[in-house]
Amino acid sequence: MKLLDFLRGERKKTASVAKERLQIIVAHQRGQRGQPDYMPMLERELLEVIRRYVEVDQDAINITLDRDADCSVLELNVTLPNKDD
Amino acid sequence: MKLLDFLRGERKKTASVAKERLQIIVAHQRGQRGQPDYMPMLERELLEVIRRYVEVDQDAINITLDRDADCSVLELNVTLPNKDD
Repeated sequence: MKLLDFLRGERKKTASVAKERLQIIVAHQRGQRGQPDYMPMLERELLEVIRRYVEVDQDAINITLDRDADCSVLELNVTLPNKDD
Repeated sequence: MKLLDFLRGERKKTASVAKERLQIIVAHQRGQRGQPDYMPMLERELLEVIRRYVEVDQDAINITLDRDADCSVLELNVTLPNKDD
């Protein structure tokens, strides 16, 4: 539940309006040097999966990718359209 | 970068061996009551996407789903096989 609490705390800081949101985080920790980095392909495929469930505009998707020597973290933040939009 | 720091801190507590890992977190915040919960379907599809890139045993996958009234958090933790396994 720690992560849920963390994400909830982050949201409190940034989101005051109760919009429907989807947040996807992919963290890839490479234990050995030279392991392939799946992120670019994963990013594309994950977006395809999401689009199967919800109609989202390209500009409603915010993507960030943090990389260091042994870890990549891909974060997708999607604001979903309300039913009456 | 806050999230990357958070995930890195979590790992320090739980993982002492440098195994290759993939962690996928999907947080769905439903702004209105009665919005559909995509999690069970997403869970299945995300696993299919991962399996396209890496061969993973069923017991190398740990899945948790936290739910409350307006938020669902799906967490997939995958320990990837080392090259020499």
